[in-house]
Amino acid sequence: MNQDYITPNEWSIIEDGFDKSRVKSSESLFSLGNGAMGQRANFEETYTGETFQGSYIAGVYYPDKTRVGWWKNGYPEYFAKVLNAPNWIGIRVLVNGEEFDLNTCTKVENYQRELNMKEGWHKRTFTAITPNGIELKVVAKRFLSLVQDELGVINFSVTPLNQSAEISFIPYIDAGITNQDSNWDDKFWEITNVQNDGKQAFVESHTNKTLYHVCTFMESIVLLNGKEVDATAEKSSTDKQSSLKYTHIVEKNQTLSIQKYAGYVTSLNHEKNHLIEAAKKVLEKGTQLGYDRLLQLQQEAWANIWSMSDISIEGDVKAQQGIRFNIFQLNQTYLGKDARLNIGPKGFTGEKYGGSTYWDTEAYCIPFYMATKDQEVARNLLTYRYKHLGKAIENAEKLGFTNRAALYPMVTMNGEESHNEWEITFEEIHRNGAIAFAIYNYHRFTGDYTYIPEMGMEVLVGIARFWQQRATFSTHKNKWVILGVTGPNEYENNVNNNWYTNYMAKWCMEYMLENLQILQHDYPSDYQRILSKTKLRDEELKQMHLVASNMYFPYSEEHDVYLQQDGFLDKEMIRVKDLEPKQRPINQHWSWDRILRSPYIKQADTLQGFYFFEDHFSETELEKHFDFYEPFTVHESSLSPCVHSIQAAKLNRMEQAYDFYLRTSRLDLDDYNKEVEEGCHITSMAGTWMSIVEGFGGMRVKDNQLHFAPKIPTQWNSYSFKVNFRNQILTIQVSKSGVDFKLEGADQFEVFVDGKARTVKAEAVSV
Amino acid sequence: MNQDYITPNEWSIIEDGFDKSRVKSSESLFSLGNGAMGQRANFEETYTGETFQGSYIAGVYYPDKTRVGWWKNGYPEYFAKVLNAPNWIGIRVLVNGEEFDLNTCTKVENYQRELNMKEGWHKRTFTAITPNGIELKVVAKRFLSLVQDELGVINFSVTPLNQSAEISFIPYIDAGITNQDSNWDDKFWEITNVQNDGKQAFVESHTNKTLYHVCTFMESIVLLNGKEVDATAEKSSTDKQSSLKYTHIVEKNQTLSIQKYAGYVTSLNHEKNHLIEAAKKVLEKGTQLGYDRLLQLQQEAWANIWSMSDISIEGDVKAQQGIRFNIFQLNQTYLGKDARLNIGPKGFTGEKYGGSTYWDTEAYCIPFYMATKDQEVARNLLTYRYKHLGKAIENAEKLGFTNRAALYPMVTMNGEESHNEWEITFEEIHRNGAIAFAIYNYHRFTGDYTYIPEMGMEVLVGIARFWQQRATFSTHKNKWVILGVTGPNEYENNVNNNWYTNYMAKWCMEYMLENLQILQHDYPSDYQRILSKTKLRDEELKQMHLVASNMYFPYSEEHDVYLQQDGFLDKEMIRVKDLEPKQRPINQHWSWDRILRSPYIKQADTLQGFYFFEDHFSETELEKHFDFYEPFTVHESSLSPCVHSIQAAKLNRMEQAYDFYLRTSRLDLDDYNKEVEEGCHITSMAGTWMSIVEGFGGMRVKDNQLHFAPKIPTQWNSYSFKVNFRNQILTIQVSKSGVDFKLEGADQFEVFVDGKARTVKAEAVSV
Repeated sequence: MNQDYITPNEWSIIEDGFDKSRVKSSESLFSLGNGAMGQRANFEETYTGETFQGSYIAGVYYPDKTRVGWWKNGYPEYFAKVLNAPNWIGIRVLVNGEEFDLNTCTKVENYQRELNMKEGWHKRTFTAITPNGIELKVVAKRFLSLVQDELGVINFSVTPLNQSAEISFIPYIDAGITNQDSNWDDKFWEITNVQNDGKQAFVESHTNKTLYHVCTFMESIVLLNGKEVDATAEKSSTDKQSSLKYTHIVEKNQTLSIQKYAGYVTSLNHEKNHLIEAAKKVLEKGTQLGYDRLLQLQQEAWANIWSMSDISIEGDVKAQQGIRFNIFQLNQTYLGKDARLNIGPKGFTGEKYGGSTYWDTEAYCIPFYMATKDQEVARNLLTYRYKHLGKAIENAEKLGFTNRAALYPMVTMNGEESHNEWEITFEEIHRNGAIAFAIYNYHRFTGDYTYIPEMGMEVLVGIARFWQQRATFSTHKNKWVILGVTGPNEYENNVNNNWYTNYMAKWCMEYMLENLQILQHDYPSDYQRILSKTKLRDEELKQMHLVASNMYFPYSEEHDVYLQQDGFLDKEMIRVKDLEPKQRPINQHWSWDRILRSPYIKQADTLQGFYFFEDHFSETELEKHFDFYEPFTVHESSLSPCVHSIQAAKLNRMEQAYDFYLRTSRLDLDDYNKEVEEGCHITSMAGTWMSIVEGFGGMRVKDNQLHFAPKIPTQWNSYSFKVNFRNQILTIQVSKSGVDFKLEGADQFEVFVDGKARTVKAEAVSV
Repeated sequence: MNQDYITPNEWSIIEDGFDKSRVKSSESLFSLGNGAMGQRANFEETYTGETFQGSYIAGVYYPDKTRVGWWKNGYPEYFAKVLNAPNWIGIRVLVNGEEFDLNTCTKVENYQRELNMKEGWHKRTFTAITPNGIELKVVAKRFLSLVQDELGVINFSVTPLNQSAEISFIPYIDAGITNQDSNWDDKFWEITNVQNDGKQAFVESHTNKTLYHVCTFMESIVLLNGKEVDATAEKSSTDKQSSLKYTHIVEKNQTLSIQKYAGYVTSLNHEKNHLIEAAKKVLEKGTQLGYDRLLQLQQEAWANIWSMSDISIEGDVKAQQGIRFNIFQLNQTYLGKDARLNIGPKGFTGEKYGGSTYWDTEAYCIPFYMATKDQEVARNLLTYRYKHLGKAIENAEKLGFTNRAALYPMVTMNGEESHNEWEITFEEIHRNGAIAFAIYNYHRFTGDYTYIPEMGMEVLVGIARFWQQRATFSTHKNKWVILGVTGPNEYENNVNNNWYTNYMAKWCMEYMLENLQILQHDYPSDYQRILSKTKLRDEELKQMHLVASNMYFPYSEEHDVYLQQDGFLDKEMIRVKDLEPKQRPINQHWSWDRILRSPYIKQADTLQGFYFFEDHFSETELEKHFDFYEPFTVHESSLSPCVHSIQAAKLNRMEQAYDFYLRTSRLDLDDYNKEVEEGCHITSMAGTWMSIVEGFGGMRVKDNQLHFAPKIPTQWNSYSFKVNFRNQILTIQVSKSGVDFKLEGADQFEVFVDGKARTVKAEAVSV
């Protein structure tokens, strides 16, 4: 099923051999990012084969007019879309005047790509014979600088192996790019200035409508056998791009290299009328440091990231490669420096899914960032939603809610809804619960309560109001019900009383009420400010309490489980294992109505509730629900296996837990869904991390203390991970024989292992 | 709410006074059609104000590539779309060289439009002052010939009232037209030949993809004061259009007229390589007959139609105008001559809804055509579906059904599905029942059983197979259930066990099984042929019987009514009358999720079942269900009021029945929904007819005999209608004092009035 062309390696993603049919997949897998910008692993030189060009700038988007077959009231007018940004990586190579192009070479040998995750760079090496018979060795290495996050650096070198040749390097920047995924073929970019002084070149452009101004820039140095040559460049510009041309005669076995410094400065971080000056500063600093020093700084910066976020696994190279790939991509996508940014489901690896933020951030990503970064990073992710509260209120108003009820969007860039399927946009409202849960989770993990009086409470009030209004009273059931929703399992649409949604709604209202009381006693001035700002009235609070206390939950006496939704048992309850294999994945083989009337579950739904609210249920209840639902779960969402892996581990079903883990950790590397060419599944990568830390490691936070219940898959010798718990850095190493802890930053620290307290001192302790 | 600009008149639709804001609405209301072609009431002369050009040829469509926001498996690739056809009505008028255009005239007086329904023509008269001060009287009359249905005729005359003027008439034909409603701006038409000999002109074009070849043609005669003048025409052609130009000096109070003969011949009815010859024959015949004779023939043809289909109402001009408008439009749209055609929801009055055939035809239109035309017409409508059986089987296969199960499309031109909302396309499957019901209804009304062995049985088998496979067994309920459907009430989507759908499914299977037995005994050779063609096996028949006998129907003990669907009672049961008026229509004010979780019913759903299967339920049951559901019904479908009117009349609630009747009969004339500019609601017009005949007249067919239960609204003095019952023409006249029958075509005939038998002899009989 999977492609299996990535060479196993502990620290690198490696592709050996040139296969044109894999180019687009590799462009995704070998993508680079530094949190501020990202780049698919497109070739620097011209490539006329199949390719999917993608350069992305964090936070730069376009509101593409919504396209639907049949309009429904409430649909958003626009869909905020990740934009393909101007190309800064391009370096055309002419060999004796002929365009060098891997698609037309008569032979390509010793082709290897490496994505070095430890040091944060991408390299291609190969030898190729051009149509006119010149054999060339090429080494092209590049990275997106972490220390200077507006800068990318490329070192591209060519060595003629069988004869001398005239080599021209034509580095260029090109703003004449398009999005593959556009609704109406709108023109996304307007180019305003193309400038080239023979050494540096700049293209200024801005997005239409959103008016993000971007200056794409470059400067290059040419070296012969490692020695800078006094290159005279021919400059050339069109209305969309600008290039420089460096031509040298290169003797057989001599190496001509070009070091290209390029990237973007944008109006997000600079005055829009002074972008060229800003670009010049970046170039000045970059070229002064030089390629080698920048590369060294890159290695140090990544070493720093890894020192906190690495998970090492002994005895299973593929598992090791998988988890590091996940951690690497998460860090490439989001570093938490900028509260305006968030984690897109494809990161910087593709355009699909358009908008940047889903409930994935709150449900899956925050735990990873909380445990591996300073708490400020998670707080930034929460603040992002706080800043969008006004838009969430507008969104709820559009759907008929009143009194400043807030419904956070399903997909967004700027707080506005960017999705347009009624069953999702209007009905997959459980997302609102994840926003509230993240606040609870942040407080639980960091112990930082201040976020709640400062910002979180207003968000909680808006969300609780939404649920109170959204629940309706059923005279028939004498309970409050929530009708017409889509749960996390998107293979059910417009159902009544989705257990997860109802449970979330009840919890959100109760959590808000509980915190309101805390504020009243402990933060009286914040309490007064919030009361006056939100105009919360006693009557409303009573009503919320009433609704929360009398929420209906579908339940089966026969099976002694909560039902995913009303009527779930009316389905033909055939287990997944009894389906013909050729029917799967069902989302590729069945029409939508057939999927909907089937019992099959795309991703954890009732079990997602058991994951979030584990403490509310006994292990027997968890087991019963796991055994009831998992057999109907097809795991056709990338977000599914991790939750099941964690629960299987908790239930001591380590074989199953390991299977789920493998499925999630190498989803993209092995391209299970045959779609990696569209980009990687970034947000689910955080789920992989959770599978190890919360699943195998059994890490939980209870009453301000860390608990572990370490288990180890039989396939592994040992594994270890680090956690930043309230500024105490704890390393957990699990082997077949037991668990070791190491502590940095404090004298001693109490943890619980399988429920028993252990004191960890600032040195290795064996338990 | 309504526009109320149509002057009440028994036989004509009249607009007095020129109002630019009404032009598009009037273009719909004053549309002409002759079953083979149709024409919105666009002006002949140039009009630079807001207009919506529309010329249509029955059966000529284009498969427009589907446009959706998010693709679902099973969606059709293409959407068959009614096409705007080349313009044949155009006559530019130059006055002293200046373009005559009502949008630029300095004054327009005595403007009147008339759509004469009795005689089948459209006329505009007005006086206007041109920008250069010439006062003109204009009379423009036109019709689409019923006797020569490829021909339209226009008589356009101009009289200068204040001075002499040089008048040029420039009749033209133009194939350079576009569809307003296009998904991807495809080019729908290819023009292949433009020809003009100075007397006649032809433009040949064909549709892309479907390759319908069309020749648009014209020839004109010019008259001065009614006397043909030896006009020398200047000819002129572009690559898209062709024109002739006739210029004369016209003295004050003299009248210059042009008679334009024009229209289409198509490859649907002629050899595509000989279209010009065919067009010349049409022109030859038309011009030989001449304008006056053609108009006379038109009057006779319409008199013939009216003699059978008219409903006259005494004492209520607006009601009279309303019902005649409905009957007129139905006859303009479909005359039943061609089994390839069907009844589009907008007829020839607009492009909206694209495809031509909905379940409206079977559920609403067939009764009208059965009672007012020869039975061949209804049989043609059934045959249309028989011919699409193969496509219906393909459609079901696409959704995963096997064994030649058939699912008829929601919307179609050629048998293929043309709709793309999953909740409709895949789930509004009750439509399949209407196809079967029409077969039953046809046999019940006409007594012609032969259709069933010849064609109907195969359709019934395919439909029954679909239902058997679509129902699934609920272990929980120990019954067969139908999950994930949309009933006739489209304000509920993806519900379980829609009572109407389940009832239809059961009935379809039982009706098929019942008729199979009849065939086995009475039509053994047809029986054998069908068995061998469909490969029906005993096992399958047993299964169908099992499913039909054990179908689940949601029911409320508390209310003693069948429930529209599972969970209906969980809604907030606020009656429509208790909604704020400003919230209505809810489809314009509420987001889709709010509509879905509300109890509001768009059109008869459970009650639609009670309408179709009235005999299966007692009047007490009907009353209970009517009283339960109607208060939640918002009647936001044009198909809603008629069923309720019929049932209200049956329940002796004449005030309510009359209100529903008015709402349906003048829906377009008074433009209740402010959308008539997009076209008229043709299919619901048959419901208006049913409201009188089945509602007030109480007509039913039981055991091969006609039953009546005549009632009369207090607002009326009397009303009468005719019914062709098995070639016996019966006129029913209902007055406040009683009911009269007249019989043509047989000596005597037994009818039932309020359950009592009466013999009607071939002369007036008072009962």
